Amino acid sequence: MVRTIIFGVTGYTGVELVRLLASHPDAMIAGGSSRQWAGKKASEIFPSLRGGYDFVLSTADDLQGVRADVAFLALPHGESARFVRPLLDSGLKVIDLSADCRLHDPQMYREWYGPHQDPEILARAVYGLPEIHRKEIAQASLAANPGCYPTSVILGVAPLMTQNLADTSVVIADSKSGISGAGRGSKLTTSFCEAGEGFKPYGILRHRHIPEMEQELSLLKGDRVRVRFSPHLIPVSRGMVSTIYLPLKGPTTAEVIRERYETFYSAEPFVQALPAGALPDTLQVRGANACHIAVEVDDRTGILVVVSALDNLTKGASGNAVQNMNIMMGLNETAGLMGLPLFP
Amino acid sequence: MVRTIIFGVTGYTGVELVRLLASHPDAMIAGGSSRQWAGKKASEIFPSLRGGYDFVLSTADDLQGVRADVAFLALPHGESARFVRPLLDSGLKVIDLSADCRLHDPQMYREWYGPHQDPEILARAVYGLPEIHRKEIAQASLAANPGCYPTSVILGVAPLMTQNLADTSVVIADSKSGISGAGRGSKLTTSFCEAGEGFKPYGILRHRHIPEMEQELSLLKGDRVRVRFSPHLIPVSRGMVSTIYLPLKGPTTAEVIRERYETFYSAEPFVQALPAGALPDTLQVRGANACHIAVEVDDRTGILVVVSALDNLTKGASGNAVQNMNIMMGLNETAGLMGLPLFP
Amino acid sequence: MVRTIIFGVTGYTGVELVRLLASHPDAMIAGGSSRQWAGKKASEIFPSLRGGYDFVLSTADDLQGVRADVAFLALPHGESARFVRPLLDSGLKVIDLSADCRLHDPQMYREWYGPHQDPEILARAVYGLPEIHRKEIAQASLAANPGCYPTSVILGVAPLMTQNLADTSVVIADSKSGISGAGRGSKLTTSFCEAGEGFKPYGILRHRHIPEMEQELSLLKGDRVRVRFSPHLIPVSRGMVSTIYLPLKGPTTAEVIRERYETFYSAEPFVQALPAGALPDTLQVRGANACHIAVEVDDRTGILVVVSALDNLTKGASGNAVQNMNIMMGLNETAGLMGLPLFP
Amino acid sequence: MVRTIIFGVTGYTGVELVRLLASHPDAMIAGGSSRQWAGKKASEIFPSLRGGYDFVLSTADDLQGVRADVAFLALPHGESARFVRPLLDSGLKVIDLSADCRLHDPQMYREWYGPHQDPEILARAVYGLPEIHRKEIAQASLAANPGCYPTSVILGVAPLMTQNLADTSVVIADSKSGISGAGRGSKLTTSFCEAGEGFKPYGILRHRHIPEMEQELSLLKGDRVRVRFSPHLIPVSRGMVSTIYLPLKGPTTAEVIRERYETFYSAEPFVQALPAGALPDTLQVRGANACHIAVEVDDRTGILVVVSALDNLTKGASGNAVQNMNIMMGLNETAGLMGLPLFP
Repeated sequence: MVRTIIFGVTGYTGVELVRLLASHPDAMIAGGSSRQWAGKKASEIFPSLRGGYDFVLSTADDLQGVRADVAFLALPHGESARFVRPLLDSGLKVIDLSADCRLHDPQMYREWYGPHQDPEILARAVYGLPEIHRKEIAQASLAANPGCYPTSVILGVAPLMTQNLADTSVVIADSKSGISGAGRGSKLTTSFCEAGEGFKPYGILRHRHIPEMEQELSLLKGDRVRVRFSPHLIPVSRGMVSTIYLPLKGPTTAEVIRERYETFYSAEPFVQALPAGALPDTLQVRGANACHIAVEVDDRTGILVVVSALDNLTKGASGNAVQNMNIMMGLNETAGLMGLPLFP
Repeated sequence: MVRTIIFGVTGYTGVELVRLLASHPDAMIAGGSSRQWAGKKASEIFPSLRGGYDFVLSTADDLQGVRADVAFLALPHGESARFVRPLLDSGLKVIDLSADCRLHDPQMYREWYGPHQDPEILARAVYGLPEIHRKEIAQASLAANPGCYPTSVILGVAPLMTQNLADTSVVIADSKSGISGAGRGSKLTTSFCEAGEGFKPYGILRHRHIPEMEQELSLLKGDRVRVRFSPHLIPVSRGMVSTIYLPLKGPTTAEVIRERYETFYSAEPFVQALPAGALPDTLQVRGANACHIAVEVDDRTGILVVVSALDNLTKGASGNAVQNMNIMMGLNETAGLMGLPLFP
Repeated sequence: MVRTIIFGVTGYTGVELVRLLASHPDAMIAGGSSRQWAGKKASEIFPSLRGGYDFVLSTADDLQGVRADVAFLALPHGESARFVRPLLDSGLKVIDLSADCRLHDPQMYREWYGPHQDPEILARAVYGLPEIHRKEIAQASLAANPGCYPTSVILGVAPLMTQNLADTSVVIADSKSGISGAGRGSKLTTSFCEAGEGFKPYGILRHRHIPEMEQELSLLKGDRVRVRFSPHLIPVSRGMVSTIYLPLKGPTTAEVIRERYETFYSAEPFVQALPAGALPDTLQVRGANACHIAVEVDDRTGILVVVSALDNLTKGASGNAVQNMNIMMGLNETAGLMGLPLFP
Repeated sequence: MVRTIIFGVTGYTGVELVRLLASHPDAMIAGGSSRQWAGKKASEIFPSLRGGYDFVLSTADDLQGVRADVAFLALPHGESARFVRPLLDSGLKVIDLSADCRLHDPQMYREWYGPHQDPEILARAVYGLPEIHRKEIAQASLAANPGCYPTSVILGVAPLMTQNLADTSVVIADSKSGISGAGRGSKLTTSFCEAGEGFKPYGILRHRHIPEMEQELSLLKGDRVRVRFSPHLIPVSRGMVSTIYLPLKGPTTAEVIRERYETFYSAEPFVQALPAGALPDTLQVRGANACHIAVEVDDRTGILVVVSALDNLTKGASGNAVQNMNIMMGLNETAGLMGLPLFP
C-alpha cells in the first residue's frame, strides 16, 4: 500500500486527490495539511467524508514528519517550492501540482511568476504529462504536474507536432475553464452572482500557462513554438474545452487527421480521439481522468480545428497526479482512475 | 424631476436602484456613495453604465451634502441607522432598504440584530410594504423597505389573516432565495463552486427576517402570529419562492381561496393571484416589480399551500423601494416599474 | 461475479447504474436495453464509455434472453411491470426502479397511477429501502426501489415514528429536486432556458410519490400517517433536499433529537446524522450513495425541522438499487458504493 | 404611435420583442401570432404579462390582416420568406429576424440553407446592422435583422477592415452563445441536464452564420474575406462572446488599436469600445441593447485579439430589430432601448 501525504488538502485539487485516493486499490492517505483548518478533522470541513474516509488535518510542517512514500503538493505556486527539496531528501517521491517545478528555465519562471524560492529543483523535475513523458516519469523522483490548460492544449496538438499536416509553429488556443480552476477562495469575480449566469474572458494573451505550453510544444516539435492563448470562465464548477486553430499546410481531409490522432493515442487509456460526427462535451468527462479530442477540417479556409475537453480537476490536475504516482511507484497506470464520469 | 441619492450604490440593491431609476420618467439619480470605490466613475465599476447613465461615486459623508429629495439607504443593517436622522432633518424623504427601521420594538431589534445605533427613529418609520400600508407610506418621511423574505411571505398570506379559512396563528414558511440575497461580497459559501451546482438550507428557524414577519402578520391578524421559517439558497442570482403551509379550518375548496386572493389583490398593479392550474415561477418575475401567488388546497390532509414568487432584488428590495418613493412623492405608483421580466 | 442486465440503460438512472456497476468489484453488466438506440454501442450514446466499459444496446425483448443473475428495471412506471414476472420466473432477482412494485395496495396504485399491468406482482415485492427493510430485502426476489422523494422523506423522519417527541401523524414535506429527476427527455419545462435560471414548484399536494410515503411511514408508526407534500425543481442536474416540519409534542432540545438520530443511524453506512451546527448541502452528496440529515428545534414556535439531502440519482435511485442488489445477492452491502461525492 | 405586429411572438425573440416594445414610448403591439397557442391570451403562455401588457394570440394568417405599420418576423428560417412580399405589398415595413433575407446571393442561400421560398425578396432587403448600414436602413422597407453571431463578429472587426493594422482577409472567430440562441423548443441537447453543467462546441466550421459574416466583412473590406468560425454553447440563457484572432501586420500597440475602435464607435449609442484593463462580460450586457468590445495585442506572437460581448436576444436579435424599426420609422434611434442590463 503506497502511503501518500497531501499538502493543501482542503483546496479543490486537494479534495479531488482525496476523492480519487479514497477508492484507489493500492494507495492510502497518511495525512493532509491545511493552513486554515489544521487541527480539525477533515470531515468537519467536508461532510462528505463522514462515515468513510477521515483524518485529522495537520500543518504543513507537521505533515513533513509523517511517514509516507509519495507527497502531493496541492498548494498555490510560490508556496510549493520550499517543500520539494526536504521531501525529496527524505526519500519521498514528490508530485507538485503547482507551477513551481514545471518550467525548465529559471529565467522563464522569473519572467512569468517572479522569483523562485528554490530554482535548483527545476533541473530535477520531469514534466508530468504521462502521454508525452511516461518513461522519464517512471524514473523520476519529482514530477511537475501540468497546468490544466497546458494539458488540454498539449494533448490537443501533440499528434501534429512532428507531422507536416498543419503549421504548428504558432498555435492559437481559445480555452474555456470551469470556475474551480480559480481555486478555492472568496473572490468577487468568482462569486456566484458575478460568474454564475455569465461568461467572460480573462488574462487574454497573458496567462501564466503560456510558457509551459510553449516549452512542451517546442520540445515536441523540435523547434520553437509560440502560443496565442485566450482563457475564459465557464459558469460550471468543472470542465475545460480548448479550441485550437492551426492553418493547414495543404489540402487534406479530416479523415487523414483523425487517423493520425487515433494512431497516436491508440495505446493511451485516458485519451480518446473521437470519431467523425462527434464533438467533445465536458459533461462526458466530468470527474473522469479523461481527455476527449475531436478534429474538424475546413479546406475552404484552410484551417484545422482541434477541440479537446477534460475535467480541469481530474485529468487537468489531480487525476493526472494520481496517474503520475501510479507510474512513479510502479503500479498499474490506470489503478484508481477508471471511474466513469458523473453524467448528468 | 425627483432628485434621488443612493447610499451603497455599488451593492446589488444599489445597482438595481440605478437600473430602475435610470428609466424612471420622473426621477433621476443625483449621486451615489460607495465605501470601496468612492472617487471612481460608476461606469468603471459597472461597465453597463458606459454610454448611458454615469456619475462619480462619492463617500457617504459627501453624499449627505448633495441636494436631493429622496435618499435610498442600500446599506447593510447597522450601517444605515446613523444616516436616517440627519437626512430627515435635512428635509429628505428616506427609504431604508436595510433592517434598521423595520421593527417597531427596539427590544426586538436588539434581540435579533444587537444594539441599535439610533432606536428613536424606529417610531418615525412606516413599514414600507405598499400593498399593506399604502396610506401611511403616502404620509411618511421614512419608509422601512421590507426584507425580501417578509415581502414574499406577508403578501402570500395577507388575504387570509382576517378570514376564517385557515389557521393563521402559526405560519410555516419554507423559502428559497437566489444568491444575490446574500449581498455583494466575497464569501466562500456564496462562491460559484460552493453554491453554484447545489442547494442548501441556512439559518433554519433562526433567520433575522422572522420578527419582521411576525410583527406585520400579527398586525394584520389583530392577534399574535408566529412564523416557523426555513430559508434555502437557490443556485440562481435572482428569484425567491416561499411555500407556505396553513392548516384549513374546515372543508373548503381552492376556488374559494383563489377568489379571496383575487378580490384582495384586484386593485394591486404588482401582485397577481394566479388562476387554477398555474404555479409561480421565478423566471416569470425576474427583474420585474411583481409578485405571483398561487394557492392549492388538499382536503384529504386539511392543508392550504400558498406559493409566492418574486425577484428578491426587485419587488423584494429595490423595485419596492421605488414604489415607496412614488407613493411618498405623489407620483404615479407604477411609474418606472412596469418593465416586463427578463425571460428567459 | 454477479451478472446484471439493465432495462432502460440510456435513461439517467440507467446511466447511473452503469457508472456504479462499472467500478463494482463483484458485479458486471451483461447487457442493457434502449428503446431508442438498440443496435448501437453504448459508447456511441455516451462517449464517456469510450476506452472503458462498453457494450451493444439491445431491445428489451432480446435482453430478457441474456444470461444474468440480477435485472434492473430502469424504465418509466407502467413500462416496468410486464417484465417483472418473466424475469422472476427465469430465476433472476429483480430490482425495479419504477413505481410499478412500490405500493402494496393495487387499489392505491390505480388511484394514483392508473391501471396496473400485473397487479399480482405487488404482493411479491419488498419495498427496497435497506435502512428500513434490510431483512426482507435479503430474502426477496423482487425489490421495489423507492422513489427519490420518499427516500429523502422516510429516512428523514424514520427515527421519530415510534417516539413521542413530535406529532408524526401528519408530515409536511417541502422537497426540492434536481432536474434529472424528471427523466431524460425533451420537455419544454425542463429545457435549459425554462428551468435553468429559475426555481418553481410543481405538482403541489398531488405528486405520485405521496402514497408511497404514506404507506411506509404508516407501517413505521403502526398507525395512519398522512403527508402534505410540495415538490420544487432546483436548477441543478442532481440533488434533493427535503425540509420536513413536525410539531413538537412538548418541550425538548435539538440535542435530544440529534441523539435519537445518531442512535438510529449509528450502524448505517450511508446515512449520516449531522452534528449541531451543520446543515446538509447537496454538493456534499453529489454522486455518492449518501443521505445527510440535520435537525433543528424551535421551542418558541414548537416545531421540529428535519432537513435531509441526497443525490436523487444515487441514494435516491441507482445507488440504492445497487445497495439492494448487494443485499439480495449476499455481497458486502457497501461494495461498489463507497465512492466519495464529486465536490465541487 | 407606431403599430407593430409580431409573427412568432411566443418564441424567445418574439417574447423579447414584447418586453422591449411594451416599454417603448412610440410603438405598440397590435397583434402577435403563435402556431402552437393561437386563440389563447398571451398572458396564459407568459404569466409575466398578467396585469400589464396582454393580447390574444392569432394565427399567422389572421395576423396579416391586422392594421399595422411594422411587421416583425420572429420565425425560423424557411418560414419567414413567404410573409415578406405580402406584407411589403400591404405597405408595411418588414423586419425579418430569420435568415431568409440576409444573403444577397440566392445561390449562397441555397448552398447553406436549401431552396429559398421567394428568392426575389433578397434584392429588396437591406442588411439590418445599423452601425454599418444605417443610411440604407433608413430608406428601406425590408430589413434583414442580422444573426447573433454575425453581429458580434462584424461589430468586433468592422473598425479594422479598411485599416492596415491587421490581416483581415481570414478571420478566426471563436464564439460562445447562451442557450436561448437555439430557440424555444424541446431538444435533448438543450435540456437542462445535457446542457446545464457542461460546455460543448457544435457546428465547428459549418455554422450557417458563416456566409452572412463573409458577405458583410467582404463588403466592408472591399475584398474577399473568409471566416473560420467555431460556435460553442454556454450554460446560460443569454449572452454571447466572440473571441476573434487577427494576425498583426506589423508592430503596433493595443493603444493604437483601441483608439481606432473608440473613434469608429464614438457616435454609436449601443457599442462600447472598452478602455485598457477592461474585458467584456456578458453579465454587463444582459438584457441590454449593447455590444462591448475589447482589444488585446501580443507583439511577441504578432496577434490581435478582439473580444466582443452582447446579449444574443437583445443586440443579437430583438433589440437590434427595434433599433431598425426606430430608424425605418424615423423615430429616435435609441427610443425604448436605453434600459440598463439586468445585473446580477
